[in-house]
Amino acid sequence: MSQRFIGSMPVAFLAFGLSIIGTPTFAQYENYLSAEASEPRKLDWMVGTPPPADKRIMQPQSDYFSFPKLRWTLCHIRELMPTQQVSRGLSAPLPLDYALDDAIDRLTFTPTGSDQRMTWEESLSANYTDGMLIMHKGKVVYEKYFGCLNQLGKHTAMSMTKSLTGLLAEILVAEGKLDEKSLVSTIIPELKDSAFGSATVRQVMNMTTSLAYSENYADPNADIWAYTSAADPLPKSKEYQGPIGYFEYLETVKQEGKHGEAFGYKTINSDTLGWIISRVTGKKVTEFLSERIWQKMGAELDAYMTVDAIGTPFAGGGLTAGLRDMARIGQIMLDKGEYNGLQLFPVKVVESIEKGGNKNAFAKAGYTALAGGSYKSMWWVFHNSHGAYAARGVHGQTIYIDPAAEMVLVRVASFPVASNSKIDPTSLPAYQAVAEYLMAK
Amino acid sequence: MSQRFIGSMPVAFLAFGLSIIGTPTFAQYENYLSAEASEPRKLDWMVGTPPPADKRIMQPQSDYFSFPKLRWTLCHIRELMPTQQVSRGLSAPLPLDYALDDAIDRLTFTPTGSDQRMTWEESLSANYTDGMLIMHKGKVVYEKYFGCLNQLGKHTAMSMTKSLTGLLAEILVAEGKLDEKSLVSTIIPELKDSAFGSATVRQVMNMTTSLAYSENYADPNADIWAYTSAADPLPKSKEYQGPIGYFEYLETVKQEGKHGEAFGYKTINSDTLGWIISRVTGKKVTEFLSERIWQKMGAELDAYMTVDAIGTPFAGGGLTAGLRDMARIGQIMLDKGEYNGLQLFPVKVVESIEKGGNKNAFAKAGYTALAGGSYKSMWWVFHNSHGAYAARGVHGQTIYIDPAAEMVLVRVASFPVASNSKIDPTSLPAYQAVAEYLMAK
Repeated sequence: MSQRFIGSMPVAFLAFGLSIIGTPTFAQYENYLSAEASEPRKLDWMVGTPPPADKRIMQPQSDYFSFPKLRWTLCHIRELMPTQQVSRGLSAPLPLDYALDDAIDRLTFTPTGSDQRMTWEESLSANYTDGMLIMHKGKVVYEKYFGCLNQLGKHTAMSMTKSLTGLLAEILVAEGKLDEKSLVSTIIPELKDSAFGSATVRQVMNMTTSLAYSENYADPNADIWAYTSAADPLPKSKEYQGPIGYFEYLETVKQEGKHGEAFGYKTINSDTLGWIISRVTGKKVTEFLSERIWQKMGAELDAYMTVDAIGTPFAGGGLTAGLRDMARIGQIMLDKGEYNGLQLFPVKVVESIEKGGNKNAFAKAGYTALAGGSYKSMWWVFHNSHGAYAARGVHGQTIYIDPAAEMVLVRVASFPVASNSKIDPTSLPAYQAVAEYLMAK
Repeated sequence: MSQRFIGSMPVAFLAFGLSIIGTPTFAQYENYLSAEASEPRKLDWMVGTPPPADKRIMQPQSDYFSFPKLRWTLCHIRELMPTQQVSRGLSAPLPLDYALDDAIDRLTFTPTGSDQRMTWEESLSANYTDGMLIMHKGKVVYEKYFGCLNQLGKHTAMSMTKSLTGLLAEILVAEGKLDEKSLVSTIIPELKDSAFGSATVRQVMNMTTSLAYSENYADPNADIWAYTSAADPLPKSKEYQGPIGYFEYLETVKQEGKHGEAFGYKTINSDTLGWIISRVTGKKVTEFLSERIWQKMGAELDAYMTVDAIGTPFAGGGLTAGLRDMARIGQIMLDKGEYNGLQLFPVKVVESIEKGGNKNAFAKAGYTALAGGSYKSMWWVFHNSHGAYAARGVHGQTIYIDPAAEMVLVRVASFPVASNSKIDPTSLPAYQAVAEYLMAK
């Protein structure tokens, strides 16, 4: 299977990690090296002039998203492939306010399915955290960097990118520039004969399309491989006859069943939504994200997105950004679109997302850790007592917004395996514990 | 020859441009489309979702550095290949002071070898200017953007990168961290058996090494092709057996003749100097450039550098940066290392560069347009009555510093052919005319 991974961004979704046996620690996940033992600086990835052969992380190696290399890669995507800027503009960054609270490290919680208490500080290590920032009532109460990340660095957002794509679409809907009830084919005629053509914009936004699209990595004929090849920004082989780029691939996707009945988490919905945004605005997603969000929120750092071979930003997972800037996004959501006294987008954008999607449709997808939840405009809505919702990406990325606690929590991580079901047990109860602590302060 | 160009950065030096016949205008260079007719926005490169096949500029096409595509490419390198950030840090940009002077557009000069006067404004078009910024006594007196560039954008510096590499080396020399008299082999033992091993650091800095290295593009066995293959950040073919990256290539370069006697403009000297800087500082050139310059000069934009397949920044030509930030570099040089009341590096760094190199060694290289000049620490020194010196890159890039006129001029351009000998006739006399005008104000 490994040659399938060559040089393409979508492998991010496929990275299951290679098992490397190390000395067990409390914070170790199964048989993987612990967070401390797998620190990229400790393993000397890409260190030296030039780095020795066994310390190189490069194309066309198939494993740069595998653990423990991914602990370096998630901060260095632009050094491996072409990217497009998400400009912060030229104005001065607007620094965040601080009210740091050391007591958070000592909070304890019970991981899901465990009978042992864990401290907050221990959870950072258990979760292979690269960066953690918590805001309460608009002030930073906690901020730590580990692994490949520091305050000047940027970390890949993985599928949190989808939530920004969804946010941009919600903005267009709220401003009357995009009709959520429109069939996609009326906006993008090229998709008329694909599965997306007969779906509504809202079905794409909520991923309730019904697509003949297999992500079964064990099957060499699975659709994910054709998608991966199309999306790969690196040059195609001479023999390659398939689609070039995200958009041409999307035209080939066929329908399977009826749209609107079940949630199916498929990245190609986000790519379609990116296409819709670009067609409606006449701008690339990177440009629109810069104009509407990044240039308006006092961002400290430019962000960037990976692109396919023809300059299409990867709306389903291509974003890399600074930790504090991701926190600014969360705070704007918490504040219903307001930032620094300005309303960046209508209140109803956030209200639509907070309200959540169809719980029955979501239940059919069988996410046990997120039972009772829903997916709306590419945000995960927990429908818990705090009204929490989140952007989430593989390997532990999250922007977690808890309106009841007036808390925004951003974690970027390089957890050894992709699936968040493995990291949620030591994450979601921890977030709840911090939220309750902050509410009681 | 075209397949030799595939996907590699050094092709920037090889871009001769493809002739396209258009309607002649005053500002047209030979048979090429005029600056106005070749505006990338007019030609719709990469416009559309997705861009139509005939409007795509992408890997592995061989011609993205050819005219007129290069008019798009020079602002979009990061979208075609991997890059490394040169961070501006987190502090607020320090805006430049302005005292704009419209009269500059109407200044006239006689192009070298011509008997017709030309206005300054006409020269911008004749030179396929993408950005022009002039500072006088520390204030911006002129600033214009064309083609692919705007104030949020970045333009490739091409071989101006070398001058920054040279500047960093001069800083290390002035601070006693690098001995210019040392043999390179004492700093980089890996280069002991190469031509560089027996050269001094100063000979590398001034490009007076004697290297068996051919840049004869017509010869399929020329060394430039092996260099290009080694430097290419894109995956190598399975059959490839050559060196990986800049550093491994440099080890293979053989000596031809005696070092120190003649100037020979060869990019591999800059790559060697980049290696020396990295070995002495323990940092990549991108990191050191960020720490010593970009984070200290109130930069508005991060810059970036292209990298080889193992993360080595291209010290000979890989930089892409904003126009105003390049002007800040020039102003710091004019002010002998001082910026905003702080001395960023010792005065003698600039004094060493201003003084110039060996004119006899330079004369042997036969640059008629620059007769009487020299090359010092990878800056071009004119030895004219104004004491002017410059960073220069193919297709018309320059940071031109005129100490007598207290003028800094930055031009980025996408002139159809690479060689500056074609653009100097409508550039150098124009700069002199502006300098004299500003001095008389």
